[in-house]
Amino acid sequence: MWDVLKRPDIPTCLRICAGTDGSITLLLELLTGKAVKVVTLDQRVVKATSDMAELLEIEPGDDVNSRLVTLSANGTVYVLAKSLAAIKRMPQAVRDDLMRADIPIGRILREHKLETRRDILNMQIIRSEFFGELPVISREYRIIHQNNILMWINECFPIDDRWNI
Amino acid sequence: MWDVLKRPDIPTCLRICAGTDGSITLLLELLTGKAVKVVTLDQRVVKATSDMAELLEIEPGDDVNSRLVTLSANGTVYVLAKSLAAIKRMPQAVRDDLMRADIPIGRILREHKLETRRDILNMQIIRSEFFGELPVISREYRIIHQNNILMWINECFPIDDRWNI
Repeated sequence: MWDVLKRPDIPTCLRICAGTDGSITLLLELLTGKAVKVVTLDQRVVKATSDMAELLEIEPGDDVNSRLVTLSANGTVYVLAKSLAAIKRMPQAVRDDLMRADIPIGRILREHKLETRRDILNMQIIRSEFFGELPVISREYRIIHQNNILMWINECFPIDDRWNI
Repeated sequence: MWDVLKRPDIPTCLRICAGTDGSITLLLELLTGKAVKVVTLDQRVVKATSDMAELLEIEPGDDVNSRLVTLSANGTVYVLAKSLAAIKRMPQAVRDDLMRADIPIGRILREHKLETRRDILNMQIIRSEFFGELPVISREYRIIHQNNILMWINECFPIDDRWNI
């Protein structure tokens, strides 16, 4: 799946954001020198469908926090991020922050001192309705905490010259 | 401490490597498009001095794996990294990999699926004997696992035009 990042039309800044195992928000802040703004397009608690239950390895019907946000800096949107979080596996304080929205997930995990790992599941180039005609790099990964899946995240990065930062 | 990274003479690629909370080796590979080579300059097991014990929050005399490596890509050295690891806190398999040397720490943690967090302690611009006359960004951080300090790491990044990648 890493071959996606080797394509010559992928700008360097996009390659490192889509490839890192660290916080995207932090990287975007380091790249742009600006604060990253999280805009929540949708945030709700839903009962897990069978698809969601499979992604999170929970039971269908369990509570899931579903969130759709954009990350932007200096007025430019760099990432569209969809996340599903298994509510029952989250410490209460983390839960509250996640639902308060507009706080980047990396910062939430850092502030609550959670020990985690990130398992990247796949990376591909697709079209996404949100970015219209632009191709996007879409990657899926899981954040693991105490050997359980805490969150499933899908990030879409538009491929164009906005990454010539 | 983040102000160090805002200095105008810090190249962007250096800023993101010195600022990331993810794996430096992975970032260097994404930036250069080359495999990163770890060269071990020194690796030994020592009894903790009182300074080491304080850094790792262990007892003086406890076993510590001390390692000094360079990370390079395409023949250029980008990082000098010194690490101290509390041997008693490491799962046996991790211990073996760490002593076999020449494997980047980020990859060791990832392959053994360790859940961790990184706490950055400080970041400053200093001189380092290894890089001669060049100023370097020096940062110290701890890798935390199961609420204990697994490793203390000091990375030095030379400030010059090698980062115009």
